[in-house]
Amino acid sequence: MAKVNPHYGKLQAGYLFPEIAKRTREFAADNPDARVMRLGIGNTTEPLTPAIVSGLHAGVDKLASADTYTGYGDEQGFSELREAIAKRYTTYGVTLDLDDIFVSDGAKSDSANIQSIFGEDNVVAVQDPAYPVYVDSNVIGGKTGSGSDGQFDGLVYMPCTEENNFFPELPEGKVDLIYLCSPNNPTGAVATIQQLKTFVDYALEHKAVIIFDAAYASFISDSRLPRSIYEVEGAKECAIEINSFSKEAGFTGVRLGWTVVPKALVCEDGDAGEVNRLWLRRQTTMFNGASNVVQYGGLAVLTEQGQKECQELVTYYMANAKRIRACLEGLGITCFGGENAPYVWLKTPDGMTSWEFFDKMLNETHVVGTPGSGFGPAGEGYFRLSAFGHKEDIEEAVASIQSNLKL
Amino acid sequence: MAKVNPHYGKLQAGYLFPEIAKRTREFAADNPDARVMRLGIGNTTEPLTPAIVSGLHAGVDKLASADTYTGYGDEQGFSELREAIAKRYTTYGVTLDLDDIFVSDGAKSDSANIQSIFGEDNVVAVQDPAYPVYVDSNVIGGKTGSGSDGQFDGLVYMPCTEENNFFPELPEGKVDLIYLCSPNNPTGAVATIQQLKTFVDYALEHKAVIIFDAAYASFISDSRLPRSIYEVEGAKECAIEINSFSKEAGFTGVRLGWTVVPKALVCEDGDAGEVNRLWLRRQTTMFNGASNVVQYGGLAVLTEQGQKECQELVTYYMANAKRIRACLEGLGITCFGGENAPYVWLKTPDGMTSWEFFDKMLNETHVVGTPGSGFGPAGEGYFRLSAFGHKEDIEEAVASIQSNLKL
Repeated sequence: MAKVNPHYGKLQAGYLFPEIAKRTREFAADNPDARVMRLGIGNTTEPLTPAIVSGLHAGVDKLASADTYTGYGDEQGFSELREAIAKRYTTYGVTLDLDDIFVSDGAKSDSANIQSIFGEDNVVAVQDPAYPVYVDSNVIGGKTGSGSDGQFDGLVYMPCTEENNFFPELPEGKVDLIYLCSPNNPTGAVATIQQLKTFVDYALEHKAVIIFDAAYASFISDSRLPRSIYEVEGAKECAIEINSFSKEAGFTGVRLGWTVVPKALVCEDGDAGEVNRLWLRRQTTMFNGASNVVQYGGLAVLTEQGQKECQELVTYYMANAKRIRACLEGLGITCFGGENAPYVWLKTPDGMTSWEFFDKMLNETHVVGTPGSGFGPAGEGYFRLSAFGHKEDIEEAVASIQSNLKL
Repeated sequence: MAKVNPHYGKLQAGYLFPEIAKRTREFAADNPDARVMRLGIGNTTEPLTPAIVSGLHAGVDKLASADTYTGYGDEQGFSELREAIAKRYTTYGVTLDLDDIFVSDGAKSDSANIQSIFGEDNVVAVQDPAYPVYVDSNVIGGKTGSGSDGQFDGLVYMPCTEENNFFPELPEGKVDLIYLCSPNNPTGAVATIQQLKTFVDYALEHKAVIIFDAAYASFISDSRLPRSIYEVEGAKECAIEINSFSKEAGFTGVRLGWTVVPKALVCEDGDAGEVNRLWLRRQTTMFNGASNVVQYGGLAVLTEQGQKECQELVTYYMANAKRIRACLEGLGITCFGGENAPYVWLKTPDGMTSWEFFDKMLNETHVVGTPGSGFGPAGEGYFRLSAFGHKEDIEEAVASIQSNLKL
């Protein structure tokens, strides 16, 4: 008699984005003439740029010819692509071996699957608020107890609040796996070298592993801020880094990312290279490589012309962030983020809960955002607006907030 | 102190394909003038066909234009693609709901990940020999004991031998999850409706779940043989089916597949729909959908013209299988498969072990195949040759076997 994985039962039935979709649907049904403006999800809206389109077409053409057709490739990805990724890291002063880099179908898969190479008896720490995948994948992987009120027993929540500039204090007890995301989703906070160093030092001391999500690194314009955790000395011995082409190149639907698992990273009683070998074994057994067509696109992203075009995309979205933040601050609302990150994290006015403000925004301005409480308990009283959208749509949303939000 | 997943330690260090690569590399180094011919791996070699190339280009162009650009899509895949897949099933007399179908990045990922929605306390049965991913994923997922000599405690091996026409007897004790693959990799055997029915009846009686891998279904030309397990009555209540565009359309590197998890499938104490909901939750949490570019290609595969072209590809590879089998039988070697499946499974002559025959083939004929023992204990004494290759290369390999194999 087959039995299901009991850990799934711990996940709450309600998931953030379906609940947003439901309330939005109900509002639209009740208000058929209202134009609903969606600033809720971090979904790219601008088309792929010319160099990348050419790269993808050239990739398709290679597969159309017997001389250049390829079938299964290395699960770790094209070596040229890994070389191009390694070359990018050198611009941050970071040297990586090619076999430390694993190309994948995106940061979401890797963020979710990385926990599976670690045992159930690890204590996991997450920033609070955090991208829900870190928590849910560890619940499914049996690394937490049961949950109530959106919190899980055995998981260590590290609050990120206005008081600590949305970067957590070190955990009080010992933890084994630590998820950090910078630039942060949802708060838009970007960690400094010094902040990351406190965690690297902790991890080295306690032989903990940091899982560093740098999917928004290309939105950093302040050159003093680190784009990779490996800019911190010692990080190669304790950190895994996950990154993505999704937001930088508009690949949210195209699917391409990479994860760095340095051979220098060591676990309890393990030898150097152990964690790298385990991730290789995981990827060669449970995955068959990112699409070759898509990898040709990724190569184009990392050319000089591709990077120039992607930088324009980033500038486009960051101008949206500036518009949103200026509007909100003009109304007297306290805002964070939106400067080196594509998310604006606002403090709900008058002590409203996140969901109360969600309903208020939707009803008064027809703008859909994301309630902060959906990202964890410490997100209560906050609200996320995404800068991904057509400029005209963002301008329309901003105008509606300006005219219609009753404060 | 971070600890690795201890189940990885149970996997043998040696893995089949790396060992083949090593011996081949050594032979090539010792014999620099020999032309090594690879019939070992089931990797497609023929270019994508015109309709599919057009479909992929059109997909890229959609992403290049603001009007048709799309970012994140449903993790389950394009609804048009799921409709096209459902329509194909109607040609087998099978009706599926769209939300029973989950598009993915390929059958390997799904074959490996499907076990994760079931608990560790399930007893797992596999055909012996079998595609190594079924075994390895369950070892990693904690559903077996430790291993020795290529066998794992707690795993039920169902021998597939000449005596049972390479289709297993029902397991003697009770098992919970049963992996079946037809057309079979590696044996090339294709199950009849009656054979599948014995397992469906068993699964319904014991509330077991069958995981049916139909990745080679398009190689079936005999219209009496089932292309889907759902052609058997009652299968929707007990079977998950995994399929792929890899071999049919040359998508081994392009990456696209699908899995059917019927809502009618019920686990212990579960309600109808539970397993379907769990797989949806797994895919929406741990995966972000197959590449949209690639899904446009998949839509082209399932058009009338795409199907015509794919049929020609299948015919091309099956002519290779016929050549290989005719050559071997002409030499008095007993062969199986290669008729509705792209693999020829031969009995090693003179009671040689699989690896002895591997070395003999490589040394005498310069042809690389796959030792049957690499697929499980009951594969000992057998050897797999793959029909995937350019016609000229297969003809050259066949000529070399004919002239140089010393029997």
